[in-house]
Amino acid sequence: MRQMTLADRPLGRPVAHSDFAMVDGPTPEVGPGDMLLAVRWLGFEPAQKGWMENFGGYVAPMEIGDVMRGMGVAEVVESRDGKWPEGTMVTGMTGWTEYLVSDGTGFDVCHPGLPPEAMLGVLGIPGLTAWVGMHGIGKPVAGDIVVVSGAAGATGSVAGQLARIAGAYVIGIAGGPEKCRWLVEEAGFDAAIDYKAGDVSKQLKALAPKGIDVIYDNVGGEILDAMLARIAIGARVVLCGGISRYEQGGKIAGPANYFNLVLRRARMEGFIVLDHESEWSAIRERLAALVLAGKLKWQADVLEGLENAPAGLARLFDGSNRGKQVLRL
Amino acid sequence: MRQMTLADRPLGRPVAHSDFAMVDGPTPEVGPGDMLLAVRWLGFEPAQKGWMENFGGYVAPMEIGDVMRGMGVAEVVESRDGKWPEGTMVTGMTGWTEYLVSDGTGFDVCHPGLPPEAMLGVLGIPGLTAWVGMHGIGKPVAGDIVVVSGAAGATGSVAGQLARIAGAYVIGIAGGPEKCRWLVEEAGFDAAIDYKAGDVSKQLKALAPKGIDVIYDNVGGEILDAMLARIAIGARVVLCGGISRYEQGGKIAGPANYFNLVLRRARMEGFIVLDHESEWSAIRERLAALVLAGKLKWQADVLEGLENAPAGLARLFDGSNRGKQVLRL
Repeated sequence: MRQMTLADRPLGRPVAHSDFAMVDGPTPEVGPGDMLLAVRWLGFEPAQKGWMENFGGYVAPMEIGDVMRGMGVAEVVESRDGKWPEGTMVTGMTGWTEYLVSDGTGFDVCHPGLPPEAMLGVLGIPGLTAWVGMHGIGKPVAGDIVVVSGAAGATGSVAGQLARIAGAYVIGIAGGPEKCRWLVEEAGFDAAIDYKAGDVSKQLKALAPKGIDVIYDNVGGEILDAMLARIAIGARVVLCGGISRYEQGGKIAGPANYFNLVLRRARMEGFIVLDHESEWSAIRERLAALVLAGKLKWQADVLEGLENAPAGLARLFDGSNRGKQVLRL
Repeated sequence: MRQMTLADRPLGRPVAHSDFAMVDGPTPEVGPGDMLLAVRWLGFEPAQKGWMENFGGYVAPMEIGDVMRGMGVAEVVESRDGKWPEGTMVTGMTGWTEYLVSDGTGFDVCHPGLPPEAMLGVLGIPGLTAWVGMHGIGKPVAGDIVVVSGAAGATGSVAGQLARIAGAYVIGIAGGPEKCRWLVEEAGFDAAIDYKAGDVSKQLKALAPKGIDVIYDNVGGEILDAMLARIAIGARVVLCGGISRYEQGGKIAGPANYFNLVLRRARMEGFIVLDHESEWSAIRERLAALVLAGKLKWQADVLEGLENAPAGLARLFDGSNRGKQVLRL
């Protein structure tokens, strides 16, 4: 079987193919009570670049030579009285490998009514992250003005739709007309701002003249600062990610408009979805119900073949993915 | 009677004497139900510079020619069946004037057991601000590590002592050995960092090796960034003020370490004490009890004469005041 391991750390530079090594080895033996999982899908998260860098310290460090850590969907192909029978589709931290042995710890069964790749996007880390950030911190209510950056991404698109479902007016910021069209026409956002087309501040002022009640930020940098310039009194700023950081060599500038948090009596808060694992199962049920009712749209951008996993990760940072970036093995 | 009015706006520069004009006029007539208040003390707040600039927009704008807005302590010297009898000492927004007429709206009676100038410091806006920020947002509990910037100021010194009373280990950041000595020897702080003496980050690392649970920031800029670099998981960052902003011509840099709010699941929140006016009276009772029990220390830096009010305000920004800057008329 094949695995991709970490060969180098992409510190201060984009992810490269040479950061990984393809390793061949024997398929692992299955002990009593264990299962052999065959990985069918991998999903990619911006946080994976941070794990490769050992940035942040909120998960165990990755060492050079470790199988690349990542979420996946796998099929139980052998079960020696394991937790689930053969044929069960499960999701969890499979890593970038064709096979692994597990007793099921940290894995969940895939939702039977949705395609398996949905478990990596709308029901996966992105959907869970959107829910925890939006409902746990942002708390939008009817009439709130909500702005989501990185809105066409797997997390941002769910975050914005959850705010819309809660009765808010939702503006998405994304790069390029195609993504903006998808946000408004497919995902039901009230408006979209193409940050590549010009002045985000000016467009925010036009779309949110009374200010922004909830910011859901996936980007950081200038976009975050432009949003902070226009917060309303009592605003909640959900810090979810800072994808602009990943393209910078060193430190990015902090948000100079942070002082509006004082003047507008507002709050800026971060979170890590891994802290909320005990809630994941209940949140997944809610998200699945919304998807099945046609209220929550999602899309997946599908690559093929384990050897293309580095490319799949890199696509997150150049903005070329359309929806959740996944890979079919 | 004499009044000081706003003559110019100190935009992007320090406060100057020429920002004010001394105006003579007749003592106002007292109508039925009103009182004539003779101002005995004025207190100075950093926010007053923002009011002069019309910065922030959270209070009604000040116009050129208006009597300078500010807190004071006054004596009721004439009462035509007014709210309080002659001789009553009251506190509220007197402005920079020798006399004013009031029906008592917005004023409170001074605490009988404490000197009147205490109403401008430990029981005034600074004390109330410290209470609202520390107990409403910071919420320190036993064992928390709390860092207060601008710690020797009227607000910071109360904020730090309140955290200490709540069982926290409290580190104050202040400028110069004299202020640091007062913090530790008089105000009971556990430790003090003299930011003028060297590397704040290094000293924070030594004093708070496990990280900071609560930041109470009055300063902004590099000091805030140094504190954010060391927040613990679940930290609360109370944004109270940004006195470093006042000495800058343009925008100051934002806190580049804001992303630690994500990695450490932390929260940064601002507030305006004027929003909490309904709570002031109850908070003052608590603060007064702590002062009378000897648990809450305060000091006042006293100037004399209305003509020195501009100097009193300016002293806040060059750090020369020792404790609450007040002025006796």
